[in-house]
Amino acid sequence: MREAYQTRLDGLADELADMCDVVAGAMRKATDALIGTDLALAEEVISGDMKIDSLRDHAQEDSFALLALQAPVATDLRVVVASIHASGDLERMGDLALHVAKAARRRHPANVLPEQVQPYFAEMGRVAVELASKAAEVIRTRDVERARELESDDDAMDDLHKHMFTLMMSHDWEHGVAAAVDATLLARFYERYGDHAVAVARRTIYVVTGDMPAPAQT
Amino acid sequence: MREAYQTRLDGLADELADMCDVVAGAMRKATDALIGTDLALAEEVISGDMKIDSLRDHAQEDSFALLALQAPVATDLRVVVASIHASGDLERMGDLALHVAKAARRRHPANVLPEQVQPYFAEMGRVAVELASKAAEVIRTRDVERARELESDDDAMDDLHKHMFTLMMSHDWEHGVAAAVDATLLARFYERYGDHAVAVARRTIYVVTGDMPAPAQT
Repeated sequence: MREAYQTRLDGLADELADMCDVVAGAMRKATDALIGTDLALAEEVISGDMKIDSLRDHAQEDSFALLALQAPVATDLRVVVASIHASGDLERMGDLALHVAKAARRRHPANVLPEQVQPYFAEMGRVAVELASKAAEVIRTRDVERARELESDDDAMDDLHKHMFTLMMSHDWEHGVAAAVDATLLARFYERYGDHAVAVARRTIYVVTGDMPAPAQT
Repeated sequence: MREAYQTRLDGLADELADMCDVVAGAMRKATDALIGTDLALAEEVISGDMKIDSLRDHAQEDSFALLALQAPVATDLRVVVASIHASGDLERMGDLALHVAKAARRRHPANVLPEQVQPYFAEMGRVAVELASKAAEVIRTRDVERARELESDDDAMDDLHKHMFTLMMSHDWEHGVAAAVDATLLARFYERYGDHAVAVARRTIYVVTGDMPAPAQT
């Protein structure tokens, strides 16, 4: 009984770490679809979102079952509560990758983004994937120092996000209103994706230390 | 012991319903600040956000304590798990009201929004406050039918959101890129606020029926 319990608890962490890898892959593909106007890749992300939803459902059912059948306490209880939160964050990261893919599909075969800003979005995509991959590692290793690094890693995303606004608000923006509206929303999707990855890492800090670090203002 | 437990469980629902009222008030004030370029009101929302964060912390600590000390099962366990989720949604609704208030402050004494679109935002604000107030009622009464109504109530928000994009993407938009960027983000904040209110109501359906209704695509 005790052994099955421990296996189930460890399994929950594995599920979440795998979910990080899945949403990292979704954002990588969505960004490639966006920059490369690759419709097939966009469709792949869009049809793959249901899988992410079901991973979330699965993690939440497992969390519920652990609470109902085992009444965990102390660190184990924190693992389960953190998993309930983190699976929600990860599902949302999947949705944000989905939104990027849908934007790529909506404007296909045109590119959503003016050439001038594509490098910024390529970079936001790279940072996003790195954050999600690092969150996976943090869940697997429970390395609190690595978890804390995500806050500062995410600063790069915030800087890119702010820079995009500076570009659009300047009088040099030559790409019109529609492109600015698209770029505004897309930049927001990447920024929120980064915030959720940081939140996932913060949950690991909570599991290990029992304290939830103060959230970054978003 | 049993009685204290029930009191604590009921108290959790009260906390969440009160939180709905607080975030409804925050969004009402933020919208008034936005439309009326009222700096004092914007500051009130901004300084009030810390209270919402601490309400969330309190609800989550109470949820955790109930799990750790009482090991609830069946409906009671669903109440606690739903509260963990709902308090997160409500805290986020507070953040979105905060974002609206910050936008109002950032452009003060200018109005963020062109006069043409102000009525749409006034209406989005009205719908947002109504959704949060109805979510409070749903938590207090556990009325599943009322909870289901929020999905269709939120359609009004989605329609307003879509209409804003149609306006900005049309060639008649005369207010430039900066106003479009501001309006894009603001419309997104209201739309997400509505989504979270719907999610809170859906958690009540889950508490009562044991089934989580399929989420709306956002």
